Amino acid sequence: MHPYRSHTCGALAQADVGQNVRLSGWVHRKRDHGGVLFIDLRDHYGITQIVADSDSAALTVLESVRVESVVMIEGEVKARSAGTINPGLATGEIEVYARSATVLSAAEELPMPVAGEQEYPEDIRLRYRFLDLRRETLHANIVTRTKVIRDMRRRMEDAGFTEYSTPILTASSPEGARDFLVPSRIHAGKFYALPQAPQQYKQLLMVAGFDRYFQIAPCFRDEDPRADRLPGEFYQLDLEMSFVTQEEVWETMEPVIGGVFETFANGKPVTPSGSFPRIAYDEAMLKYGSDKPDLRNPLIITDVASHFTTSGFGLFEKIVAGGGTVRAIPAPGTADKSRKFFDDMNEWARSEGHAGLGYVTRKGGEFGGPIAKNHGAEGMEALYAALGLGPDDGLFFAAGKPEQAAKLAGAARTRVAEQLGLIDKDRFELCWIVDFPFYEWDEDAKKVEFSHNPFSMPQGGMDALTSQDPLTIKAYQYDLVCNGYEIASGSIRNQSPETMVKAFEIVGLTKADVEERFGGLYRAFQYGAPPHGGMAAGVDRVVMLVCGAQNLREITLFPMNQRAEDLLMGAPSPATNTQMRELHLRTVEPSKG
Amino acid sequence: MHPYRSHTCGALAQADVGQNVRLSGWVHRKRDHGGVLFIDLRDHYGITQIVADSDSAALTVLESVRVESVVMIEGEVKARSAGTINPGLATGEIEVYARSATVLSAAEELPMPVAGEQEYPEDIRLRYRFLDLRRETLHANIVTRTKVIRDMRRRMEDAGFTEYSTPILTASSPEGARDFLVPSRIHAGKFYALPQAPQQYKQLLMVAGFDRYFQIAPCFRDEDPRADRLPGEFYQLDLEMSFVTQEEVWETMEPVIGGVFETFANGKPVTPSGSFPRIAYDEAMLKYGSDKPDLRNPLIITDVASHFTTSGFGLFEKIVAGGGTVRAIPAPGTADKSRKFFDDMNEWARSEGHAGLGYVTRKGGEFGGPIAKNHGAEGMEALYAALGLGPDDGLFFAAGKPEQAAKLAGAARTRVAEQLGLIDKDRFELCWIVDFPFYEWDEDAKKVEFSHNPFSMPQGGMDALTSQDPLTIKAYQYDLVCNGYEIASGSIRNQSPETMVKAFEIVGLTKADVEERFGGLYRAFQYGAPPHGGMAAGVDRVVMLVCGAQNLREITLFPMNQRAEDLLMGAPSPATNTQMRELHLRTVEPSKG
Repeated sequence: MHPYRSHTCGALAQADVGQNVRLSGWVHRKRDHGGVLFIDLRDHYGITQIVADSDSAALTVLESVRVESVVMIEGEVKARSAGTINPGLATGEIEVYARSATVLSAAEELPMPVAGEQEYPEDIRLRYRFLDLRRETLHANIVTRTKVIRDMRRRMEDAGFTEYSTPILTASSPEGARDFLVPSRIHAGKFYALPQAPQQYKQLLMVAGFDRYFQIAPCFRDEDPRADRLPGEFYQLDLEMSFVTQEEVWETMEPVIGGVFETFANGKPVTPSGSFPRIAYDEAMLKYGSDKPDLRNPLIITDVASHFTTSGFGLFEKIVAGGGTVRAIPAPGTADKSRKFFDDMNEWARSEGHAGLGYVTRKGGEFGGPIAKNHGAEGMEALYAALGLGPDDGLFFAAGKPEQAAKLAGAARTRVAEQLGLIDKDRFELCWIVDFPFYEWDEDAKKVEFSHNPFSMPQGGMDALTSQDPLTIKAYQYDLVCNGYEIASGSIRNQSPETMVKAFEIVGLTKADVEERFGGLYRAFQYGAPPHGGMAAGVDRVVMLVCGAQNLREITLFPMNQRAEDLLMGAPSPATNTQMRELHLRTVEPSKG
Repeated sequence: MHPYRSHTCGALAQADVGQNVRLSGWVHRKRDHGGVLFIDLRDHYGITQIVADSDSAALTVLESVRVESVVMIEGEVKARSAGTINPGLATGEIEVYARSATVLSAAEELPMPVAGEQEYPEDIRLRYRFLDLRRETLHANIVTRTKVIRDMRRRMEDAGFTEYSTPILTASSPEGARDFLVPSRIHAGKFYALPQAPQQYKQLLMVAGFDRYFQIAPCFRDEDPRADRLPGEFYQLDLEMSFVTQEEVWETMEPVIGGVFETFANGKPVTPSGSFPRIAYDEAMLKYGSDKPDLRNPLIITDVASHFTTSGFGLFEKIVAGGGTVRAIPAPGTADKSRKFFDDMNEWARSEGHAGLGYVTRKGGEFGGPIAKNHGAEGMEALYAALGLGPDDGLFFAAGKPEQAAKLAGAARTRVAEQLGLIDKDRFELCWIVDFPFYEWDEDAKKVEFSHNPFSMPQGGMDALTSQDPLTIKAYQYDLVCNGYEIASGSIRNQSPETMVKAFEIVGLTKADVEERFGGLYRAFQYGAPPHGGMAAGVDRVVMLVCGAQNLREITLFPMNQRAEDLLMGAPSPATNTQMRELHLRTVEPSKG
């Protein structure tokens, strides 16, 4: 017999009754029924009930150990009596009568409980992460995470992609977020950087002719922690393809990402691959007030400015005349909602810093509220007819400059749908947001800046760059959105050195700047670069969605806390004098100011 | 038709003759046959011959582009005439008559050639790595590398392991090699470290109950570059198992590692899994003079000290009397070798810093050389009989202190076998080296030190630590060796906190030291730690062996040079003042001394 176990704790069933077995695992729970001890013995694979009665040599051994000790049990598999069968447990039809028990590792008094998953302060959970990770939900989430990654990897391989690992000690990239730096010992005063993403390397792989690259890539950003971002590192499914259009990227990736959701959705509906909606950025901002629309929400925003060019409701007329707009958010079936429901919504909009959220109520065809009154019944009927709304549907209005109105309308769309219970939580709605603007106006710097990825190809190429108002140029740039979260982003790249220089010129950088900052890539484009494009999907976000987890720490093995500290291993920590000398560094104490 | 290609450059065959096709790729070679231009068009998948004759609009386009430009060709697939079929090319039965050609990306004058793989200075190859990677051998090696990793991963998954990624920003581990440090922005004067290996994390995973872990793990060591180690990062197949003995680790991993070799051996014989020899460290040092024996070498070293306790050859008698030993290395079938062959070997041993390599020649049963003469024919006959040597076999002798004699004998065994052509290069011989000493004598520090992994379990456990001479204690510690290279190393771990403290005490560390340096792991062992063990295999070494590559740069995508510089991306590079201020650091210029 195996020295530690003949079976795992998830293996035994009715068919094994009568067998002599050896099991090893953790003492999950102990119940003393007066001379008979019941132990739930747990390992990675399951839980098996152990019985030690007063005749058994195991009794005294097991009586003396604390929960979470590791023990080895030898005994006989017996069928449970009909009344004690546990259908919720894979091994629930049997129990093991222990003949002997051996303590393989005794546990001290625990700093936090494992069984029952009682809420516990985060710093204790992180400091004793090895106990926290034994808890059922977190343990299962981590296993799901690894399965999601495995599924992604297999689907990518099946789609003809090859996984290449790109360097982790690399060059600082002056665009984007803040780099983590790694001092060089050999070159005093110089630093490597950890990659924020393998963007340049994956493009270099295309220039080197590898055709279809992917990687489950570790990425590093030294940004201040926030709720939806852990300090330090995160993983993305990174990919790049040569000789492709953006449509081909979408067609290739829908079965991969959609397939992952289908595999782990537990039967919840997922947008079928091959039919992810493709929504232009401008349209998304209009209809959903967001470039990350939650399509589980059935409400659609409409621009109704044309209804208010003349209106008894002077405020809207004035806004429209001044170049502003009015966006309408339906509130279907709200005939029985109190005035307070509508006023609270307006109050919420003000508390968010907006001027307010106008509204119309309607009950049995009867309009209510000041806007309806001033605008007049005829105008309201026309508006409702245009929007296809019924006799018991209310309507909210977000008015102001187009960007402000879009933002408010988007937030109101979400809030209205949530309050009316219109969002089906048990589904995954995926869509592409496409045709992002290439440039945007940077109000702080009073200049044109790249909206997203400076390496993207502007639609219209060199022609557009030389002839169009930059703010009207779209990019071959796209996001993949699920349930209101951006889960991936990508583009067709600009692989022409001349177009690249021109694109950077528009944001005020010279050819020399481009050569200095992106020399590797710029140089590569001089020697035969294929048209190429790709994207990167956030592994963490996908895992959170399929696990239904609310916090990144619930799907991460060894996360740091919000102060970017690893409480388990004690990082970061002071360097020794030798290390500082070898790295040619001295610490400058921060001023106390 | 697809906007860039209807087929890849490796797809077209006889069956496609007559089809109109579109291909995109790099201009690999151009041959101008007076009015007819032949182009080898290359992509990741292969090469297709393009023909542009004087009637074709493609001719002028293709005449004007340099090699390595990216072009798109449209034309008709035609069968090659019998005499021009190229059986060495997958597409060698056809060629494409170009109707039109479009330049997708024109190449400048190349800094290094791609076709033909001409040798080129390394700094140019690294600076233009995107060109270097287009070369046939390197491109193929990189693809093999990814396939090896994929194969490893699948085999591990099939063996019931789950892949978990452990943190890359972690704590400095004060044992082992030099860490790369990452300064913390939030905590002035503190540093993260990049992992030298996920040793502690994988053990914590076992304590957390994950049972079978593996990872293709990036590892980082800031060591001075040498021939068999690239600066910076490397990958290992890292794994750990709970409730196992070392035999189970071996049985589990033989089909994985052996299987990888079998998959990529191109038919070369591989030691069958299930039958890797298991050789104790002491035996390996005796029989092969190395703990990394090349078992393709049939020569076996024998300790022949007992033959020289009395001998006419006084030098050996004296060495043996003084506690030294004599090791014999056969040189079979050397009857026709000149005296110079034997003398050169002696000369080589001296040049390596040894006292010399004695020898006996034999031809038709006749002994020759001073040792034979002094030792006497009867003694020689007895020695030869004991070693099972024949009438035409020579014999070398390495004499001295046991460690010195073993080392010289091991080197001589390799050299003799190489010179006699006894090593079959076309096979993979795998074996386990087991029962490594737990401790060794550190001559510099004049104290006992850990031989290998301080986290390994000493054989005999606490009993051995308290009662045995430390230098006689073996560990449950093993290496996997292939063709003379260590390709993996592992152990059963010491998961008992008391035994761990005792083990460290013997090298002069206190319980407080253990708590401070390995706090996470030491703490974990207090709360129920399963018996566990594992190993780590060097991915790079396995890939080098299966590719037959001599240099790590031939199997690595974007290696740094020997000065730890990335010439392509320009790393390391100076940090900005803002970065230095944010990281609370100042550079100390190295003294010029």
